[in-house]
Parts: sequence; structure tokens; C-alpha cells
Amino acid sequence: MPLKRIEPGKRMSSAVIHRNRVYLAGFTPDAALGKSVAEQTRDILAQIDATLKEAGTDKTMILKANIWLTDIKTFAEMNSVWDAWVVPGQTPARATVEAKLAAPGIDVEIMVEAAIEGAAEAGGSKGADRKQGKGAAKKAGAAKQGGAANWSPEERAARRAKRAARKAGK
Amino acid sequence: MPLKRIEPGKRMSSAVIHRNRVYLAGFTPDAALGKSVAEQTRDILAQIDATLKEAGTDKTMILKANIWLTDIKTFAEMNSVWDAWVVPGQTPARATVEAKLAAPGIDVEIMVEAAIEGAAEAGGSKGADRKQGKGAAKKAGAAKQGGAANWSPEERAARRAKRAARKAGK
Amino acid sequence: MPLKRIEPGKRMSSAVIHRNRVYLAGFTPDAALGKSVAEQTRDILAQIDATLKEAGTDKTMILKANIWLTDIKTFAEMNSVWDAWVVPGQTPARATVEAKLAAPGIDVEIMVEAAIEGAAEAGGSKGADRKQGKGAAKKAGAAKQGGAANWSPEERAARRAKRAARKAGK
Repeated sequence: MPLKRIEPGKRMSSAVIHRNRVYLAGFTPDAALGKSVAEQTRDILAQIDATLKEAGTDKTMILKANIWLTDIKTFAEMNSVWDAWVVPGQTPARATVEAKLAAPGIDVEIMVEAAIEGAAEAGGSKGADRKQGKGAAKKAGAAKQGGAANWSPEERAARRAKRAARKAGK
Repeated sequence: MPLKRIEPGKRMSSAVIHRNRVYLAGFTPDAALGKSVAEQTRDILAQIDATLKEAGTDKTMILKANIWLTDIKTFAEMNSVWDAWVVPGQTPARATVEAKLAAPGIDVEIMVEAAIEGAAEAGGSKGADRKQGKGAAKKAGAAKQGGAANWSPEERAARRAKRAARKAGK
Repeated sequence: MPLKRIEPGKRMSSAVIHRNRVYLAGFTPDAALGKSVAEQTRDILAQIDATLKEAGTDKTMILKANIWLTDIKTFAEMNSVWDAWVVPGQTPARATVEAKLAAPGIDVEIMVEAAIEGAAEAGGSKGADRKQGKGAAKKAGAAKQGGAANWSPEERAARRAKRAARKAGK
């Protein structure tokens, strides 16, 4: 099966589709260039939504996300927008690190890979899911950063408990 | 299906093949170690070409590329070589960020993933494509950096126009 | 086929499974937070082992690994643990770069993707492989850094010889 591309360019493409996976470019802010990290993140996630839609899938099907911030101190600000965007429980694997990006005014860059099949199946309950998701996510966003990693404090605690239970043979 | 590896080592492999995809290591300059960013990029892309060939595919089948530069100010210099290497319109998803790399003299590192099937199908017209590609790419390389992102100015303009048209329901 | 997730959270999941591949989050030290880079690496690799196991696969099936270090000078220290962990000859594609990470005390972050099928097939000889592997890896870990890249000096020499032989048409 040949590759399909979204907005193929001379240097790179916005996305490349191979079988049941789509690989998106690292997206940077467009209209929000030079604005706040929250606005840049919203701008990028809107571009990602549009590109995933064009590929026939959506954010609940993202497999992995790499996020770069020019200043890791903006981690919480980026997360406040991210947490309100993802659907809780249908979240991707993710890693966020600091890196200088391609040009001044770009303070966030996000690159994702998503599965394509199945997006339609999830479609029926999506409206409700998203609504419920946003409420829960807002609460999570309001919670203070636990300090240690990409997981929220509750998530870290839950993971620790799970691991402890696993070790105890439960 | 078991994995196949190219140059498997004690620490890492040059590439790992699983079904119809090949995952390449982050390649760093070999002979061009310590030389200019343009020379390092050419060196790396030649290694990638050879590895993709060994895997039974080629650069038109790259799904995604991650590029690290020790100095993001060398973005245009790296791109001048990249733009002449890729085949316009058959380009991968890509993200480029700044990062200190494993040793002094390494100023560029590139990691790619590619599809394997289909490379042969593209083979027939490849000579012509590449020739045409290089001409177009040279022109693009000569164009000044637009400043904003990984896309060239023309590509950004084209993307904006496309998005506007989409929004207008065209 | 829908996605399966391991430790799905509001912000991210520990891992996402799609068909015969599993995508792990960027893992950071848990108990070893703030300790030495060697201890942090061991902690992370143990978490990765547990997550791969939960996904029905193991470290010999890792396709690619991205490693971030807050200080690239700790490259050799991280590698001493990594080299003893991987099974020589069954190693993934890998890239390691420097980056500031999400919080103080996190000096290593590792993100991997693995194939799922085949892990069982490899199971029969695994015990023996690992034993042999650890011996060989310890020797490799003891060898001084060649300076140039992620490959050990022997691996670089072997790759050069292979390339030379290939060019000579052998």
C-alpha cells in the first residue's frame, strides 16, 4: 500500500498515512505565534484536531505524543490546555522535554502518531464522553503539580498503589 | 513475526524491522564528525539511504523524522542539504529541535521510521522524480527562511490558504 | 480494533496498545527520584520491564528508544546500566540527547515502542540469552567511551568494516 500525505510539501508533510496509522509533523503555533504558551497550545491542538480529522481519526486514537517546550517552567500552563483537550481515560503515551525550537515566538511544539481504525466506532458516544471528560479534566487541571513527572499527583498515587498490589500478588 | 535487525550491537542496532516498518537509530556523522553542519547532514543522510536500502525501502517511504541540532541557528544550513535530498511531495512528517548531543563534533542527529512495502512500486519513476525533485528543492533551499517553523514560506502560505478554503467550506 | 491502555490517566497513559505494537510513555524515576543517574536508569528500566510484561512482550522486542538526559555528561553512567539491561544482538534503534526534564530530580527519561507478537517465541532461550548477554554487556560497559556516538568503539569499528566491505562489493 502506497503512502498518503496531508499537505505534502517540499521539505515535509503535515501528515503521512500508512495502513492504519497516521504520523503527524511537529506542529507549531500558527495564528498564536509569539502569544502565551496556553494560546500556542490551543492553536497547535486545533491544528492537530483538523489534521487527525482529515486522516479519518481523532484525538482519542493518539498512540503517542512528544511535546517540546522552550521553557520547561511552562509545563503547568501547557498542561492546563492539554488536560482540558484530552478525553480522560483515552489518553496517549506522552513525553515532554525542554528544547529550543525553530524560531523565536515558537514556545511549544507537539508531534503525534495515531491509529486510524476504530475512530468511527468511538464516534457514537463521543459527545457525551467529551463533556464528561472536560469536567474531569478541569478538576485535574486545577490540582497543583505534584512535582515529579508528567502524571498528575492522583495518577502517580494510583500507579504506585497498582504496582504495590501487583507486587503483593493481588 | 520475529524482528530483523541491521547491524545489531550490544547497545543498539542501526535498524530494527518489524512487519512492514523499519525503525532507524539516531544517526550521527561518521566521516564528517566535527565538520560543517551541511557536511554532517550529507554524511548522515547517506548513512540513512544505505540503511533504508538494506531494509528494502527508500527515502520516499519515510513516515517520520526527528532531527536534533546542537545549535538551532544551523537550521537553515541543515535544511539546505535536507531540501536537496528529499523528493518534493514525497516528504515525511518531521520535527526539528535543539539538543546537546552525545559527543563534541556531533552537531546533527537524525532518526527516521519508514514503511517498507511500496518502495519497489515507486522505483520505476524514481530517477526522473529525483532529478525533478532536486531542481525544485534547490530553488526552495535558496529561498530565505520564513522564520516561523519547519515549513518553507511557500508551504506555510499554501497551508494557510488550504485551511482558509476548508473553513469556507470549499 | 480499539486501543487498549495500561494505567490510563486523565493526562496520559503508561502505555497504549494498538494491534501488535505497544507505545510506552516517557518513563521517569519513581523511587529513585533525585538519586544517581545509574539508580534512576535502573528504576526506569524496571518500570519499562513491568509495563512491557503487562503488554505481553519484553525488552528484546523494543523497536525504538528515545532517551533524554538532563546532562549529556552522564551518558556513560546511563549506558553502564542500559548495556547490562539489553540483550546483546537483540537491541533496539536508539537516540540519546540532552534535555531539561519535567521536574528537579528527574535526570533521565526513556520512551520506547515495542512489538508484541514474537515475545513468546523468543521465550524458550531467554534465560540463557540473558545470562550470556549480561556477561558480554558488562565487558562492553567496562570499555571506555569511544567519544563519537551512541555506538561503542567496537560497534563503530564493526560498522565501518561492514560498510567498507559492502562498498568493495563483498
